[in-house]
Parts: sequence; C-alpha cells; structure tokens
Amino acid sequence: MSGDPLLAHIRNVPDYPKKGILFRDITPLLGHAASLREACRRMASPFEAHPPDLVAGIEARGFILGGMIAHFLNTGFIPVRKPGKLPARSVQREYALEYGSGKLELHQDCVQKGQRVLLVDDLVATGGSAEAAVWLLRSLGAVVEAGSFLIDLPALGGKKKLEDLGLKFHALLSFPGQ
Amino acid sequence: MSGDPLLAHIRNVPDYPKKGILFRDITPLLGHAASLREACRRMASPFEAHPPDLVAGIEARGFILGGMIAHFLNTGFIPVRKPGKLPARSVQREYALEYGSGKLELHQDCVQKGQRVLLVDDLVATGGSAEAAVWLLRSLGAVVEAGSFLIDLPALGGKKKLEDLGLKFHALLSFPGQ
Repeated sequence: MSGDPLLAHIRNVPDYPKKGILFRDITPLLGHAASLREACRRMASPFEAHPPDLVAGIEARGFILGGMIAHFLNTGFIPVRKPGKLPARSVQREYALEYGSGKLELHQDCVQKGQRVLLVDDLVATGGSAEAAVWLLRSLGAVVEAGSFLIDLPALGGKKKLEDLGLKFHALLSFPGQ
Repeated sequence: MSGDPLLAHIRNVPDYPKKGILFRDITPLLGHAASLREACRRMASPFEAHPPDLVAGIEARGFILGGMIAHFLNTGFIPVRKPGKLPARSVQREYALEYGSGKLELHQDCVQKGQRVLLVDDLVATGGSAEAAVWLLRSLGAVVEAGSFLIDLPALGGKKKLEDLGLKFHALLSFPGQ
C-alpha cells in the first residue's frame, strides 16, 4: 500500500469521534472524481469475472461505495440499515462496534435463497457491523462469499473476524497499528 | 408516468412511518439490477451532455442513488450528512421535514467556489432537506443548477420550492395527491 495514490485523499483526523481515535476521513477521496472512480474499480475488480447477484452496503458511508460498485458490477443493491428505517417486515441483529453498540436491519424479502451477495463498506475496524450484516444476509438464505472495503484497520480484528466467517476479504488500504 | 415500468418496483406501504402517510419504498427497485440501472441512467441522462463537477446526495438513501449517478457521470461525490458525522470543519442548516425537523451538514472544504453540483435524492416531499442542501452548497460557493430525484410528491410543495430556488427539477416518478 506504501505510495498508494489513494492515500493522498484520506484525511487523518486525530481524536475523532473521541480522544485517542485517529479517524480516517474518506470525504476528500469521495470528492475527487478520478480517485473515487479508481477506488470503485479496484474495490470491484476481483469480482468482475464472476459478479455477485447483489451488492449489500452498510448504512451510511457503505451506501455510497456500495451503490457505485453495484453500478460498476451491474447488480442490484441491498441497503443494510440502522433500525427503524425499513417499512416492510425486517430482521434485526445487534452488534458491538468500535465506539459503542448498534443494530442493523434487513427487509426479509431483500434477497432470494442462494443469491450471491458482495458486502461493501468504507472501513473495517472491529468488524462488528460487517459480521452482523453477514449474519442477517445468511439468515435470509444469501450466499455471502466476500467483502470489499476501502480501508482495513487489521489491528482491531475485523479482517480476521470476517475471514473466520469464510469470507474472501478485500481491502484497498490497510493501516496497521490503529 | 402512467405505465412507467419502474412503478412495478416501488412498494406502497400505508401508515408508515405514521398513520395517514403512504410510504414509497424503493428497496424493491434497488434490488432489481436492470431497473436500478435504468433509474440511474434516466436520473442522470439530462446532465450527461454538460455534466456537473460533483454530485451531492442527501443521507441516507440519497447516498445510494447519488453514488451511482456520480459513477455514471464520472464525477466526485459530496455526502450531505446528518449532524455529528463529519470530522472536519462543517456548516450546518436546520430544516423542517414531512415528519418533524432535522439538520444537515457539509464539510466546509467539500466544494470549490464555482464548481457545479447536481443534487440527488430518492424522493422530494416538502423539499425541506433538499432546500437545506442547496442553501449549504451555495453558502460554500457551489453553483447548484439542478436536482434529480427518483420520486416527486408535488402536492407537498417540494418541486415548487426547488424551482423557486432556480433549480432545474428532474424526477422520474410523480405521485400526485400525496
């Protein structure tokens, strides 16, 4: 990753959202057309040869990259949502995250049994939200083989957690020691 | 719009999020690859000949379609966020919405003076959030000439509000009387 040109578009914000956390802000990358397109291409490319049926993105930043990757791979999109946002029958899963805890929800009819789903998010830290998303998708019969992420913070254990779930793990930028 | 094939993928949910509201659920459309791609193409096509510098999408569903349209038009993306999500210096604007009130935020450095921005969201009701987004973008020097939406509920006044702000208004599906 050393010298990866995408790194110039990640802003490091110390002590956000709380003291001791170095926040990796992707908004400069989102705003830079060529780099955004390149990030999307590189996040999607391992899955081009055998594309999934659907891309699932985790609210909210995962909606941006997930929508783009769904467009790139020509698939549908599943929003993995925070609670109380989905109007039809849903399933819910709690999880622990880096700064507290949360819940995620999926519509029960968002996927058909056996459909292959690629999970997308901007960043993996502890992997709690991604694990919950995989759990929910699999509970509905989806085949979740892989996750694609812009940033990995491997010291926080998310990559290992997802690999232990059997996912092929793909991340463009890895920041060790965070 | 009568007979528009996209309509088959909008689910009408009565009394959500509260009694008397007929909620237009776009998740079936998101999950249907061909229709999602078609919706994205049609939302973006009026802007292809003279594309904007950036697409701005309103959190959270506007991130999905906004990300796709940014990819389609080969632009960068600005997330118009709910409060407390942006780590760098930000500007904030309050607005009234259909079921209560809210605030939106932008990073102060998300756009350069004179850059042309296309606003994207899934649905326009009262137009409160879209108006706040236009206000914020213009306060930072952006040129916001147009808004592109999947669904318009013109009886709630959003279309008129945005046209009064000088925006070219583009929506694929219009539900009168809601």
